[in-house]
Amino acid sequence: MFDFYPPHWDGIAGFMIRKLIHDDREQIQSILIDTHHFNDDEIKVAIELIDVYLNDAKQTDYIIYVIENDETKQAAGYICYGKRPLTDWTYDLYWIAVDPNIHGKGLGSQLVKHMEDDLAGSGGKIILIETSGKAEYENERKFYTKNGYEVQTIIKDFYRRGDDLFIYRKYL
Amino acid sequence: MFDFYPPHWDGIAGFMIRKLIHDDREQIQSILIDTHHFNDDEIKVAIELIDVYLNDAKQTDYIIYVIENDETKQAAGYICYGKRPLTDWTYDLYWIAVDPNIHGKGLGSQLVKHMEDDLAGSGGKIILIETSGKAEYENERKFYTKNGYEVQTIIKDFYRRGDDLFIYRKYL
Repeated sequence: MFDFYPPHWDGIAGFMIRKLIHDDREQIQSILIDTHHFNDDEIKVAIELIDVYLNDAKQTDYIIYVIENDETKQAAGYICYGKRPLTDWTYDLYWIAVDPNIHGKGLGSQLVKHMEDDLAGSGGKIILIETSGKAEYENERKFYTKNGYEVQTIIKDFYRRGDDLFIYRKYL
Repeated sequence: MFDFYPPHWDGIAGFMIRKLIHDDREQIQSILIDTHHFNDDEIKVAIELIDVYLNDAKQTDYIIYVIENDETKQAAGYICYGKRPLTDWTYDLYWIAVDPNIHGKGLGSQLVKHMEDDLAGSGGKIILIETSGKAEYENERKFYTKNGYEVQTIIKDFYRRGDDLFIYRKYL
């Protein structure tokens, strides 16, 4: 068969996954705002992680990929994950966001699958995801369940009163 | 009655709790080594947090107190905790260690109580503790249980094969 490049061409026609570059920063920020799912503090933290990644020549602490629209060459979504210190093989999915105008194509699942393949290939065994239990996050929780993540635990009132933490977990 | 200073005089005779200073760094490192409970990577991370704290003029990310021996003026133990980003009131206990030659006096419980009083006084509601499920950590797990912490969840093989994560939780 053919040896295609980029390796993720077969994910979704018209999109490819590649590492984040500096030019993506503004577009990712727009996506985070457009989802209407993150408050100002959360967007600030998400952008801080992007800046840490862009300023870290070895890119050791965080791993960030974007899914790029072949036509516009712009990021249509991104995923940020990293290894939990002091563990051999446990990773956290920190952030994932997809342009709300392109929802429904499976770009999010494609990013998750890319992360899982990437980590499994380098010895990763466990992926954890922390998310809110608020009603507004029901679609996110369904998304993780659909992608094979199970609820590890729920910590009541973790974020603030009435806003629980859900920890999802998958063994690779 | 009398208004004693320091406020924690009544904890354990001969010891007082105060903020970490630069002169404690070497002694804390010795204690971490002497406990024989932390590997080199763990001690490195513990010292990194101490350095972040000592170099942060506002000391915002981590909070570190030591329990000092009145006679020697040396640290006999320390506790390091900090707020979980994006939460209103959830804190992690990152590190606690007591000189193994002074175990059994209740210095560890005194440090935990100090943390709880400190956090409750500034609106803290939840404290989380992550520790290993290995047999060698049984005394640590008993210590947290004795101090009122409950097991929130256990993540199998989290650190490495056969080394589970225990998350303890207390609502203040």
